[in-house]
Amino acid sequence: MQPGDPVSSAGSRESGGSAFEAYLEDSRLRVLDEIRAILPDARRPGGRLYELMLDYPLRGGKALRPALAIATCRALGGHLEAVLRTAAVLELYHNAFLIHDDVEDGSELRRSERTLHLVHGVPIAVNVGDGMLAASMAPLLENIELVGLGRALRILQIVARMARESAEGQMIELDWVRAADWSPTDRGYLRMIYKKTAWYTFLAPVCAGAVAAGGDAQVERAFVRFATPLGVAFQIQDDALNLTAGPERYGKELLGDLWEGKHTLILIEAVRSASPSERTRAREVLAKPRCAKTLEDVAYLHDLIRRSRGVEYALGVARRHAARAAHSFARLARGLAPSPHRDFLSGLVAYVVERDR
Amino acid sequence: MQPGDPVSSAGSRESGGSAFEAYLEDSRLRVLDEIRAILPDARRPGGRLYELMLDYPLRGGKALRPALAIATCRALGGHLEAVLRTAAVLELYHNAFLIHDDVEDGSELRRSERTLHLVHGVPIAVNVGDGMLAASMAPLLENIELVGLGRALRILQIVARMARESAEGQMIELDWVRAADWSPTDRGYLRMIYKKTAWYTFLAPVCAGAVAAGGDAQVERAFVRFATPLGVAFQIQDDALNLTAGPERYGKELLGDLWEGKHTLILIEAVRSASPSERTRAREVLAKPRCAKTLEDVAYLHDLIRRSRGVEYALGVARRHAARAAHSFARLARGLAPSPHRDFLSGLVAYVVERDR
Repeated sequence: MQPGDPVSSAGSRESGGSAFEAYLEDSRLRVLDEIRAILPDARRPGGRLYELMLDYPLRGGKALRPALAIATCRALGGHLEAVLRTAAVLELYHNAFLIHDDVEDGSELRRSERTLHLVHGVPIAVNVGDGMLAASMAPLLENIELVGLGRALRILQIVARMARESAEGQMIELDWVRAADWSPTDRGYLRMIYKKTAWYTFLAPVCAGAVAAGGDAQVERAFVRFATPLGVAFQIQDDALNLTAGPERYGKELLGDLWEGKHTLILIEAVRSASPSERTRAREVLAKPRCAKTLEDVAYLHDLIRRSRGVEYALGVARRHAARAAHSFARLARGLAPSPHRDFLSGLVAYVVERDR
Repeated sequence: MQPGDPVSSAGSRESGGSAFEAYLEDSRLRVLDEIRAILPDARRPGGRLYELMLDYPLRGGKALRPALAIATCRALGGHLEAVLRTAAVLELYHNAFLIHDDVEDGSELRRSERTLHLVHGVPIAVNVGDGMLAASMAPLLENIELVGLGRALRILQIVARMARESAEGQMIELDWVRAADWSPTDRGYLRMIYKKTAWYTFLAPVCAGAVAAGGDAQVERAFVRFATPLGVAFQIQDDALNLTAGPERYGKELLGDLWEGKHTLILIEAVRSASPSERTRAREVLAKPRCAKTLEDVAYLHDLIRRSRGVEYALGVARRHAARAAHSFARLARGLAPSPHRDFLSGLVAYVVERDR
């Protein structure tokens, strides 16, 4: 490994878990520097926008998406320089979505601190998110100088699709919430999170990373087969963590999904397996807006989930998807030379279903 | 003129005003069709997003921005096909900004109907705006087939800058509102609206139109010299209409700017020329959030503006900018063959300062 390689700090560690975490952390720091480099100067008029864009990224998220893009590109033999800008843009998009999601969901905590709209008000939060989407375009155009025209255009297409899929997935969920519709099936839930989570958290990073490395459509497809079930498993684990995590690790509002009435596989299973009278009460509680729900309401849902074994059911679905991802990766990995980047990708399967934050 | 030309329906009219309005209307209808063509199918999962994206455009705005892009391209000898997709994207962006602005400003009326977030809730409104920004990217990439690579990339750069300038301008204003800061000077106001209004309403459409027609950097610059003062005059006229328009024509909430405490040149002048005690009271009123302001508060501001002749002052500034735009256009027009498109651009100067909606 060269000095300054994304995983150099992990080189001396022995445990796989540590090397994985170190890879994440190293990617995160590099991507933060790159984000600082691509954002316009904060001293220009209106430049406070750029200070506020750094707020969520500096709170220290996992930066999973850029690590995934970097690892894919480098595992395929691409250079860090070919993918770093794209990785930074993916992280900007992710944080823009988080800001807007927090507004949309009325969330109060993000990475253990108050959400941006609680600190600065909804108007500024909406605008900072818009500014981040705007600030992503120029770096993707300048990518032409880094990776050539063909790859830069393909990456732009991937980012465009990612933004579209995310908005569609979010629309499906918001419609369910607004209509207090608890008819969704497992299939409906899986389609929603494929769009809302899997596309921008897994598919876009691996596709962009593969393209940055010069991978062709076949390579992209192989990575999509790996990333799609992984994204599904990731979101289900996220839903489960919201109910079970220790708050000091989690950084979001515990039980927030119950307060918000979010459509998780866990709740879908709990509502489905409840008795008719329980189902009626659960639907009544879930139809209330967040501010009208009581502690007792949330405790009722929590208990219903416990009795239905909804968490265990959902985690079973997650494990099956993770196994599918592991299978796809095993086939894919035959074409990859051994490297810490390949190891990181391989470690993702276990990480996704075992993580505690 | 060919049949189906954007101004064909204006051909038989005699008055300049009617031809101008007909050009606007014809462009609007074409652009609506093009928006329908570029949006994904509403029947796909999450596709209600695309129904809601059409809500504001179908309410019948002026569609000034696409008309400006079309007229610029065609006045320079470009084809309608070269600019129509870009014009549709500019209109999508405009409507996305309107949706998010309405959320940010807590506005209640848009084009004489209830704002999107009042009808569907803030979460859906924020997401529909995000979806519109997302849906704009693919058509701009497909532009390569219509206008070639160089022009398509330059148009992407223009749209990226437009989005950035708008977010910066919005940030300046939101910061003033949030800090109840009434220190802005005329110069500060002009810089804010240059970014917030002029860039996306005038500069981006003329630049994109010029590029679509194959105009070089010199042509773009000449159009920028025309569009910049025009954008300033347009926003000041908009501020004045908010205080003086007949509600049946205006379509927005009359006196909404006073309720929202918006930083208009009119209010800046009124606060500046008030006595110390009046200024104190005005600042107290302006610092209140919208929901805490009383009818009496708004009447006080209205009266202060009347006594300071703030509207007249601001319209004087608007007229001086319009005159500058007319001067720039006169120089520019020497290079343009006579056409209804050139006539439309020429008519803009009068329109901007004389319009009543």
